[in-house]
Amino acid sequence: MPEFQTLDYRVDGGIAIATFSRPDKMNTFGLAMMQDLLDLFDLTDGDDAVRAVILTGSGRAFCAGADLGQGGETFHYKPGGRPGDIDVDGVRRDGGGRVTLRIFRSLKPVIAAVNGAAVGIGATMQLPMDARIASTDARFGFVFSRRGITPEACSSWFLPKLVGVPKALEWLYSGRVFQAEEALTAGLVQAVHPPEALLDAAFVHARMMTEYSSPVSVALSRQLVWQNLGAPHPMDAHRVDSRALQARGRSADVKEGIGAFLEKRPARFPDRVSRDMPDFFPWADEPPFA
Amino acid sequence: MPEFQTLDYRVDGGIAIATFSRPDKMNTFGLAMMQDLLDLFDLTDGDDAVRAVILTGSGRAFCAGADLGQGGETFHYKPGGRPGDIDVDGVRRDGGGRVTLRIFRSLKPVIAAVNGAAVGIGATMQLPMDARIASTDARFGFVFSRRGITPEACSSWFLPKLVGVPKALEWLYSGRVFQAEEALTAGLVQAVHPPEALLDAAFVHARMMTEYSSPVSVALSRQLVWQNLGAPHPMDAHRVDSRALQARGRSADVKEGIGAFLEKRPARFPDRVSRDMPDFFPWADEPPFA
Amino acid sequence: MPEFQTLDYRVDGGIAIATFSRPDKMNTFGLAMMQDLLDLFDLTDGDDAVRAVILTGSGRAFCAGADLGQGGETFHYKPGGRPGDIDVDGVRRDGGGRVTLRIFRSLKPVIAAVNGAAVGIGATMQLPMDARIASTDARFGFVFSRRGITPEACSSWFLPKLVGVPKALEWLYSGRVFQAEEALTAGLVQAVHPPEALLDAAFVHARMMTEYSSPVSVALSRQLVWQNLGAPHPMDAHRVDSRALQARGRSADVKEGIGAFLEKRPARFPDRVSRDMPDFFPWADEPPFA
Repeated sequence: MPEFQTLDYRVDGGIAIATFSRPDKMNTFGLAMMQDLLDLFDLTDGDDAVRAVILTGSGRAFCAGADLGQGGETFHYKPGGRPGDIDVDGVRRDGGGRVTLRIFRSLKPVIAAVNGAAVGIGATMQLPMDARIASTDARFGFVFSRRGITPEACSSWFLPKLVGVPKALEWLYSGRVFQAEEALTAGLVQAVHPPEALLDAAFVHARMMTEYSSPVSVALSRQLVWQNLGAPHPMDAHRVDSRALQARGRSADVKEGIGAFLEKRPARFPDRVSRDMPDFFPWADEPPFA
Repeated sequence: MPEFQTLDYRVDGGIAIATFSRPDKMNTFGLAMMQDLLDLFDLTDGDDAVRAVILTGSGRAFCAGADLGQGGETFHYKPGGRPGDIDVDGVRRDGGGRVTLRIFRSLKPVIAAVNGAAVGIGATMQLPMDARIASTDARFGFVFSRRGITPEACSSWFLPKLVGVPKALEWLYSGRVFQAEEALTAGLVQAVHPPEALLDAAFVHARMMTEYSSPVSVALSRQLVWQNLGAPHPMDAHRVDSRALQARGRSADVKEGIGAFLEKRPARFPDRVSRDMPDFFPWADEPPFA
Repeated sequence: MPEFQTLDYRVDGGIAIATFSRPDKMNTFGLAMMQDLLDLFDLTDGDDAVRAVILTGSGRAFCAGADLGQGGETFHYKPGGRPGDIDVDGVRRDGGGRVTLRIFRSLKPVIAAVNGAAVGIGATMQLPMDARIASTDARFGFVFSRRGITPEACSSWFLPKLVGVPKALEWLYSGRVFQAEEALTAGLVQAVHPPEALLDAAFVHARMMTEYSSPVSVALSRQLVWQNLGAPHPMDAHRVDSRALQARGRSADVKEGIGAFLEKRPARFPDRVSRDMPDFFPWADEPPFA
């Protein structure tokens, strides 16, 4: 298990809970948090005891955005400048985007339990997650235009798909901070709860998503939806789901799943994500950066 | 006209009504129903007397999913195994996907009148239809993960476009069965009616869609929307709608349509789908499976 | 500044207001209006004093559709027939599409203030705008099927993204005219106001979008969202937003933006759209028509 510097990690009842652990810094984002998040999803993908992942923050913030300790130089990257950065032909890959592309490929459902301020990368890192559940204390802000920079972490791709084009543009143009209730109305978050009920609500949601389901089926379902979200034609899905159905149709899981259904009892699925994903998975490489 | 084994067919006032006719089997889906559905849309596309298509079920179910008569072997396909299946390089094309890709190409609007249980393929076959109208008795379930299989019929492509990513994922992960009211709130169905009012409501909707419109214009509108739904750039639409406007601009329909508008009388469009589609139609082949 | 034939133009408090100026003709669309709209967005893109653009109409109509002065011959184009048309290999490029593709590339937010009838191209020209605010007097109609023609101006691409597939299809099939309230419920318009409050509401919206934001950041945000709306994979956004973040991270704007934030004062951004867009912009050419 990796030694996380910026988050606490535990697994409870099949659900991994990762909690940003620097409340004194409002859980701001830097290279260490980027690396922790990349490692986190490698860990949860590889651990069959984990059925879903909840990400939350300690203290008043979920994540208050980039660490601005370097002031106006914060986003001034020099090629080859920092360990942990990836330069491709002189272009630095945005660290927030590396995180959201990693979450995009997660094999377990991911839920944000938004306890407080979620600003900049603290908001955009949530977009490739499967659900966002907010406390009444949560605040959101896509503040890039107010800082003189631009939407990052692939948020220009994800945000309009979640809240529609006009709302995405309004938030990105204005950069204003808004409350949980507005996020709920717009569809950015799926539910709002009092602070003391937030984590329980996220747990209930995570269990509902996974309790009666085959872990391998959930992993494949997740990738089918996210990978096909921008696909030009339904044939793109047909190619993959035909293969998936054929592979799963001869699995131990389907015998158990149909048997349990016919016998009206809960299924106990034997297949494991770590060893029983179909051999055509992954069916698509991540496109190259350059 | 094909001899349907799994559905009854009639045309009433320009609207085709296809009713799944095996209530004792809960209208479950197998190769015979797949073939009937492929034939159905060839029939309705070719018949100028049909302006729109309503699909419904007899008895308690709309379609209760795949016929599980073979139990845990239901989805275990052997290459070359069943007549009616298509194998491409050892991969069997999902029969549900063949149906939804056929509906995708329909030249007539298609409405599901969901009278009861719509589970598995009974739910996913509805996604490329133009509207779903449900009875208060309707139940929906994308139950694949509970059976150990995966979303099929291109549903990973269609479902998030109709109900958004978070709701699509929640339904696909959990596999839970839900009521018409939840489907309405999520946007999966467009209206809910008491059982005795369902078919009338579907008729009213079908008539509203077609009553004052040119059949050729409706056919082209349908393909413009569905074929461009995943297109990368609006230029993809511009190329086609420029050609369509040019072809239709010299048609007999447009003379009647504008004449009737200027004279404030209903139009009587002379063009027919069977013979008057523009010669550049279809403008795109279905992408190959392999 | 171009001499507009079909609209009045003024700039007030950083907001350009273009008003269709032929109320006696219900502001119908023809070649002159097409050219004026193409020129309008060149003008607003090039003028740093313009932060956002509002488009509205004088009189009872916003724009009542194509000028039908030629009756049933209105859409009958002969190759090489009219000055101002573009023929590509014998295909005339739809003038409405040339307008919406131009708005798609606008560097300033664009708001429709829909004062009255918005029919045909009067409705579809609004779809690539960033918000639509309607008067209670507004009426909308995607009437193409009732005239015997087809959806134009790339509307088959834009409309389902704004209102969902079922509503887009229902409006396009039926061609019926509907009220502002229905447009609001469907998400086509973002707010409805009494006629006398319409323009003020559009102003407030335009100011909210731009007041505290860097103009260059807003221009890049707009293009990131619209250009990536149909992109197949979030990597498409990651490539661009990494470059944008790197370029903006060393800008004068970001020093001011972060400085102002840390000092809790409003920022005064020095960068200008006319001279300070990053050198990799535009990052993608418009795809060719043929």
